[in-house]
Amino acid sequence: MRLLDQTKLPLEQVVVEIATWQGAAAAIRGMQVRGAPAIGVTAGYAVAMAAMEDSSPDREGLLANLARAAAEIVAARPTAVNLQWAVKRMLQVAESEREPEAIKARLLAEAKRIQEEDETINRKMGELGKELMPDGGGVLTHCNTGALATSAFGTALGVIRAGWESGRRFQVFNTETRPFLQGARLTSWEFQQLGIPSTLLVDSAAGMLMRRGGISCVITGADRIAANGDTANKIGTYSLAVLAKENAIPFYVAAPTSTVDLSLKTGDEIQIEERPQEEVTHFQGVATAPPGVPALNPSFDVTPSRYITAIVTEEAVCRPPYVQSLKESVKLAVGASAGVRGSG
Amino acid sequence: MRLLDQTKLPLEQVVVEIATWQGAAAAIRGMQVRGAPAIGVTAGYAVAMAAMEDSSPDREGLLANLARAAAEIVAARPTAVNLQWAVKRMLQVAESEREPEAIKARLLAEAKRIQEEDETINRKMGELGKELMPDGGGVLTHCNTGALATSAFGTALGVIRAGWESGRRFQVFNTETRPFLQGARLTSWEFQQLGIPSTLLVDSAAGMLMRRGGISCVITGADRIAANGDTANKIGTYSLAVLAKENAIPFYVAAPTSTVDLSLKTGDEIQIEERPQEEVTHFQGVATAPPGVPALNPSFDVTPSRYITAIVTEEAVCRPPYVQSLKESVKLAVGASAGVRGSG
Repeated sequence: MRLLDQTKLPLEQVVVEIATWQGAAAAIRGMQVRGAPAIGVTAGYAVAMAAMEDSSPDREGLLANLARAAAEIVAARPTAVNLQWAVKRMLQVAESEREPEAIKARLLAEAKRIQEEDETINRKMGELGKELMPDGGGVLTHCNTGALATSAFGTALGVIRAGWESGRRFQVFNTETRPFLQGARLTSWEFQQLGIPSTLLVDSAAGMLMRRGGISCVITGADRIAANGDTANKIGTYSLAVLAKENAIPFYVAAPTSTVDLSLKTGDEIQIEERPQEEVTHFQGVATAPPGVPALNPSFDVTPSRYITAIVTEEAVCRPPYVQSLKESVKLAVGASAGVRGSG
Repeated sequence: MRLLDQTKLPLEQVVVEIATWQGAAAAIRGMQVRGAPAIGVTAGYAVAMAAMEDSSPDREGLLANLARAAAEIVAARPTAVNLQWAVKRMLQVAESEREPEAIKARLLAEAKRIQEEDETINRKMGELGKELMPDGGGVLTHCNTGALATSAFGTALGVIRAGWESGRRFQVFNTETRPFLQGARLTSWEFQQLGIPSTLLVDSAAGMLMRRGGISCVITGADRIAANGDTANKIGTYSLAVLAKENAIPFYVAAPTSTVDLSLKTGDEIQIEERPQEEVTHFQGVATAPPGVPALNPSFDVTPSRYITAIVTEEAVCRPPYVQSLKESVKLAVGASAGVRGSG
């Protein structure tokens, strides 16, 4: 597997060769690959690699090793549910086959299918979501949700792109997204590649911009969405949603149904990953704070659904009450996926 | 004049020797000295230096040169009103004397008086404001408002310090304050020096922390306060105030009456400084965004007074309606100052 190392962009374009499933898990943990959908796709290939590396003589041995590998892959990052979703899907496929060689072949095919589906799903979200984009005014986004965070096209960034490609014109503003700077490093780069003009700002300047009247809507991705629409996403999303509501600006989320976790009633049940303090106290190896200062580094926050105007999935533009509209979307997606597989 | 270079802290403690008034203006512009009260003090000395460097044979020539220097010093940074306030005060003193040598001597004494008054004022704010600090819970602050931003003791940080020294115990949280990282570099360092435990977080994590229940109050400084209490302060302050209100957390401002600009009815009239894009797109000389990406870099934002629970000045803990309470504070301060001078 070959990944563009996202810790190095945009200064360097380094391709990492991943030779083992452990290497894939480490790349997820170390954020060389990031973005909920991209993590899901990588996890799919990681399970396939675990199978291909395995030399168990029988089905039981292989499945037991796969389960162990799966547990470790899932533990690489706790908040994005796409990781769990992809691994679970892979294990189900493994269990549906009888022969080790057949399991291995099916797993590789399934990983590829997850990747291809992700692009299709993103393009569908773009089609559905583009109507939300303004003609004139400004669109604010946070973190990175483009091709680098997915198989291709992107989620929130894909909706912005689809809006732009449909001929609507607006100014894009994107936050730098501390501490990992996904916005400055990755989103600015993607918009530049796409030829969509964007302006960078520090996270804390977004509120002023909203109050000044420069923003027509805010759109972000998601790492996990509870049944009631409460959304875990990159740290800072909650603040943007509160500021949007205070300034009467619509706040949208774009995420595939694989991000919806109907097993969780509300966002209070979502586990929030705490990452190393050094991501806050250092910048590219240089200290920004005096030695010994403790830092808090929650990677995500939860935005209660009352701040969210609509959630764009590949099936629909979901509106409140989300407990109904999200369930409906998930049902449609499961049906569509079964249809694809039936004909595959 | 000797200044600790605040662009180098905490990694290096470099003392800059300022030999001319132009050098002082450049240090203000380049943020080697920053923080509204510290800028005011530096501006006072800059005017005194302009006088001492001057070789005009008569009073008129000296005053004309001082006016030119004053205009340039005031232009170094447009938002903090303490700069204008200090320069205006110095010019008034200059005009009150007849002989060039007497003008020079009075200006040096007046600059020193501004510096000493600032410490006294900060300690008074601490005394008045400490009652607002919780016993238990957390206190959140933004940017740097400590000894480094003032002559000594600090404004918002001074209130926190006075609360701590009065025996109240709480956890301090401070934002890193992008793009200049005054929080990470300077505030973390000051709390460490004072022995007050503090935890650093990225600006965008403050909202989550408030929602989680870890914060009992927020306190910041100010760069300019309009007659109605609308407050210009470091970019991100508005967001913190909105998030505090949304989470029913008191939001306090601590600032000397020299920060209150009664000539402005509301914060809409406050000029907001835009600083170089490179402060956002680069970090210590290293690019964080691809070349050519435009960035927005407003140095301040305005928090409408409806989000502010109280404003601590050296005269009182002002409560809404600020149009009355602030006017009262300014009147008391002018009276006190006249009293000091009368006896001086």
